[in-house]
Amino acid sequence: MAMQFLSDNAAAVHPAIWRALSAADAPDAPYDNDGLSRGLDEAFASLVGRPCTVLWAATGTAANCLALAAMVHPHGGVICHREAHIESDEGGAPGFFTHGAKLMLIDGESAKITPAAIAALVRSLRGDVHQVSPQAISITQASELGRVYRPEEVSAIAALARLHGLGLHVDGARFANAVASLGCTPWAACEGADALSFGCVKNGGMSAEALVFFNEGLADVARYRRKRAGHLQSKGRFLAAQLLAMIKDDLWLENARAANAAAQHLAASAGNRLLHPVEANEVFLTLAAAERGVLRQQGFTFYDWGDDAAPLVTAWNSDPVAVEALAAAIARL
Amino acid sequence: MAMQFLSDNAAAVHPAIWRALSAADAPDAPYDNDGLSRGLDEAFASLVGRPCTVLWAATGTAANCLALAAMVHPHGGVICHREAHIESDEGGAPGFFTHGAKLMLIDGESAKITPAAIAALVRSLRGDVHQVSPQAISITQASELGRVYRPEEVSAIAALARLHGLGLHVDGARFANAVASLGCTPWAACEGADALSFGCVKNGGMSAEALVFFNEGLADVARYRRKRAGHLQSKGRFLAAQLLAMIKDDLWLENARAANAAAQHLAASAGNRLLHPVEANEVFLTLAAAERGVLRQQGFTFYDWGDDAAPLVTAWNSDPVAVEALAAAIARL
Amino acid sequence: MAMQFLSDNAAAVHPAIWRALSAADAPDAPYDNDGLSRGLDEAFASLVGRPCTVLWAATGTAANCLALAAMVHPHGGVICHREAHIESDEGGAPGFFTHGAKLMLIDGESAKITPAAIAALVRSLRGDVHQVSPQAISITQASELGRVYRPEEVSAIAALARLHGLGLHVDGARFANAVASLGCTPWAACEGADALSFGCVKNGGMSAEALVFFNEGLADVARYRRKRAGHLQSKGRFLAAQLLAMIKDDLWLENARAANAAAQHLAASAGNRLLHPVEANEVFLTLAAAERGVLRQQGFTFYDWGDDAAPLVTAWNSDPVAVEALAAAIARL
Amino acid sequence: MAMQFLSDNAAAVHPAIWRALSAADAPDAPYDNDGLSRGLDEAFASLVGRPCTVLWAATGTAANCLALAAMVHPHGGVICHREAHIESDEGGAPGFFTHGAKLMLIDGESAKITPAAIAALVRSLRGDVHQVSPQAISITQASELGRVYRPEEVSAIAALARLHGLGLHVDGARFANAVASLGCTPWAACEGADALSFGCVKNGGMSAEALVFFNEGLADVARYRRKRAGHLQSKGRFLAAQLLAMIKDDLWLENARAANAAAQHLAASAGNRLLHPVEANEVFLTLAAAERGVLRQQGFTFYDWGDDAAPLVTAWNSDPVAVEALAAAIARL
Repeated sequence: MAMQFLSDNAAAVHPAIWRALSAADAPDAPYDNDGLSRGLDEAFASLVGRPCTVLWAATGTAANCLALAAMVHPHGGVICHREAHIESDEGGAPGFFTHGAKLMLIDGESAKITPAAIAALVRSLRGDVHQVSPQAISITQASELGRVYRPEEVSAIAALARLHGLGLHVDGARFANAVASLGCTPWAACEGADALSFGCVKNGGMSAEALVFFNEGLADVARYRRKRAGHLQSKGRFLAAQLLAMIKDDLWLENARAANAAAQHLAASAGNRLLHPVEANEVFLTLAAAERGVLRQQGFTFYDWGDDAAPLVTAWNSDPVAVEALAAAIARL
Repeated sequence: MAMQFLSDNAAAVHPAIWRALSAADAPDAPYDNDGLSRGLDEAFASLVGRPCTVLWAATGTAANCLALAAMVHPHGGVICHREAHIESDEGGAPGFFTHGAKLMLIDGESAKITPAAIAALVRSLRGDVHQVSPQAISITQASELGRVYRPEEVSAIAALARLHGLGLHVDGARFANAVASLGCTPWAACEGADALSFGCVKNGGMSAEALVFFNEGLADVARYRRKRAGHLQSKGRFLAAQLLAMIKDDLWLENARAANAAAQHLAASAGNRLLHPVEANEVFLTLAAAERGVLRQQGFTFYDWGDDAAPLVTAWNSDPVAVEALAAAIARL
Repeated sequence: MAMQFLSDNAAAVHPAIWRALSAADAPDAPYDNDGLSRGLDEAFASLVGRPCTVLWAATGTAANCLALAAMVHPHGGVICHREAHIESDEGGAPGFFTHGAKLMLIDGESAKITPAAIAALVRSLRGDVHQVSPQAISITQASELGRVYRPEEVSAIAALARLHGLGLHVDGARFANAVASLGCTPWAACEGADALSFGCVKNGGMSAEALVFFNEGLADVARYRRKRAGHLQSKGRFLAAQLLAMIKDDLWLENARAANAAAQHLAASAGNRLLHPVEANEVFLTLAAAERGVLRQQGFTFYDWGDDAAPLVTAWNSDPVAVEALAAAIARL
Repeated sequence: MAMQFLSDNAAAVHPAIWRALSAADAPDAPYDNDGLSRGLDEAFASLVGRPCTVLWAATGTAANCLALAAMVHPHGGVICHREAHIESDEGGAPGFFTHGAKLMLIDGESAKITPAAIAALVRSLRGDVHQVSPQAISITQASELGRVYRPEEVSAIAALARLHGLGLHVDGARFANAVASLGCTPWAACEGADALSFGCVKNGGMSAEALVFFNEGLADVARYRRKRAGHLQSKGRFLAAQLLAMIKDDLWLENARAANAAAQHLAASAGNRLLHPVEANEVFLTLAAAERGVLRQQGFTFYDWGDDAAPLVTAWNSDPVAVEALAAAIARL
């Protein structure tokens, strides 16, 4: 019984991904000139219902930062939440890929930013050369705290981006969980975005994320930047294969639904320990040190969240028995 | 029959690598905290016969550039051959990772640099702030033209590097081919290096190269830079697994020997068409456009090399029948 | 009557500086090989009472950022106040010079940071590769809000820097005002710093700031970076001349005392309008829009500070009659 | 008697520049919001006979690199001569300002590049992501070896730049010498350029160069980059004053003519020692070590140029008596 609730980022690889990897092991052109890589644009366009250009990348950090680097000048800025992954967990990668552009941090409930906060930031700036001017907005769908942006929230932010001439990036490391949670179309969950980092690794993939551009000019830049960042793998067919398998027959949503359901199960047992409404596959609980100790003694693994809390993260393959056991253990605390 | 002699970089993945990937699909810690990743230092130390620190990376470009970035200041330079991969085929990645350090190009037969050329470059510089000063040397083992550095050649360059306080990087995208060709120990083929990019993808791997540091301080820097470059994959165990499988029971040498032998077979039929002695798995031939056409009509695929030549690149899995057929076809031209 | 209280940064050039410029117009070696530039180390060492290496630079932004770039890796961070000039008013220059290092912002009264806030930030970090680690601290003496760090406050921060292995930079664009205000030695006002940006332009200079290194290794790096940033002027003797004239016979303190005294005069008339204690040459006042209008109608010029306040900045040559008039006008409001 | 023929870059400041500096010492807006700075566009437009946007910068390195940074992506390249100042004497500054773009070096007589060499370089490239693609051309007028591009040569290069969609930068550190030599209009000497670094320091200025953009979009970018590079001086009026004085009443041409005439005088005495035709203010002579010794013993100062040659550089204020004496001394060798 896998009693791991640390993260979805190291979970096992889904059998369909394995089969696709295996099937991809036939001679083909190198880099992204193989048939699988060349099929990505169409496959994702069909999924999202609009033309797009898709580049694979090995990590979400690379996908996010390639997107941002295509959107902003080195002297520009990216508006994002203070708790965004690009700010807090990517080792300064945005600064590297963008050559020093500034993350301009704003606050908002559950790691979601609001049009009002964006507008306030923009209003506070003089726009002269002494201050960094924002050139893009990045939102995380689902957010770092497991919340989702409703379609109308995304649209409102996109409208603001257009109004101020800013690019819009959606960090969708857990985009599947968001879409599964919202029950909307993929486009509705990111409508107006110029680029979407479409997560696969956390959702049963091995080593591929899709960087989906709805703006061809940005993709042209990102293509050069990907090579320049050492991310153009010569056997790229193995990355494309994962992505195609992930979106085939809605595997991505099926996996996300399983993870979300496990999270809901845990949430249901948590009562007023819940720190944030659970809308994806992360459950943030108030848990004192002693309580965390009790759960860990029973074999459950998870990270701390400050001194008095913990995030429980479920995955596509969270063991139902373990989930049940953990839910019960929490209820017993 | 696979009649592809374009490059080794898109060849099939070796069965032993597949088995290792499969075996790695068990829950473990994310990033490089898993057991496999943590075992790399010891495995490579045992292979090379000296302590080292090993970081996996998805591409040779990433491995090379992370090494260089750890060795040189942004205001410094890297001495390399004018035809080095880092200069001509990495899309400017060295400039990106090093934040603008300069590749300082020198010439030399068969894409190999010599101590004399290095010394001449160093001597020509004033060392003041108006000129870029070299801080590292990068050599390619085997070279872009399929030649190898003898152990004594490596040592002489390493001695010069030490004399001038320069780091020494060995781009070993085809290190296996070089060592197999030289019949020496791995260390003899890179003795004195501070960092070695140990190739795996061209030699039957899927998506992993080893960046081997013989200088712990550099590894400490590279670790941060790898994350910052989006190259720290969360399921790193799959990269480590490939590397461990590749060096186990000398698979790397076995694969390289097969590729080298195929190249020798082709070379033997080439007569005075040979542009460079064949010491690894690349055969550069004088081939007029019409002759290239003849071979391609027979189904053989390969790149052009300028107007009157072509490189034939063999791989670990070059089909002996195809090799024999190509050798015969060349002899018939 | 000069009724300008906008900033000290565009004030007239002191006659002694003009004389020094004029005297410097004799043939000498280019760049910083002239006699004046070569005399800077000794002149400042004598002023500060300890060995140092001094590089001139044309702007405070350049001086600050060259210092930081010498102290931190591109993957590192600089702890500073949220309102520090490097964060808010240098157009992203720190990100440029450091190749993307992160400014790690903390709060503190009157734009001064405290050891407690630094310690809290350091404590909150895991130190792994996913988070940026601080490698330097930058404080502003006097602060953006016209406050000064007492010698014991500087020492406490320096001790913390040493404890955590961080560099310490002092942005002294208004260092003269701070030292004049504190009545201490220059070293006491920056004790423990690795680098001090010693301001001259705001204090009667034309186009030179001194970047004073108390750490020779950092100066060696900065020398290359200065050239690489296009800041190594060929007629450097004119920058050195300004700096030497500024510290000769304590002109810097004399000028600063005049500016500080003018600020005190204004403060004395401000009553409970004062937003911050006045310790240097900046006076922050609560002033409603209508009140600002009244003062401006009388000919006084100054910036707004949000909606309900204004900073009044005095300079070495603030006209006593204008100061008196403004003080009276404020008292009348 | 000033017997210095080392360089024009440290020569004295012209009296008209001093007068202009002095006149500029009146209160005005900071940075480039003062009246003088705001008058630059019109003054240069009138000089060049076409609309332009002018930014001052303290050094030629800054001017050159700000221009290039506005023209090329970090993943792009700049075609220039192997002996261009940006390649050999700016300490890697182009790599810094452009965030790692590559200088793509070509050869050509007397440090001048030719359309044929540019075309050959462009033709040799595949244009894929593995190679750096050129995005700009930079020529030096007059060249590093004191030669000038004829108007038709400039036009031919400009046409090629347009054909391939490349920006065109003219490094005019000695543009005055070139125009004086050509006897053409300023525009004819740089026709088709997107940006011109218009030198002033070597021609009697103190600390200002003009960066003249004939492409408004590039100027908009450069404005931000100048601040970000610490080159936006707060008392910018003193830089603008120098530039306005330099172009007033053709002082720039008068000074350049004096320097050129001195160079011609030296050239006339050099016989077959001349290594390059003398078209500006640099005279490259074959001079054995012993001969250099003889001249130096007579008090003349100049640099070595390799083992058997020396450059003699004249300036706006080269002493006619010293020039005459040196010419005679050379003739006597």
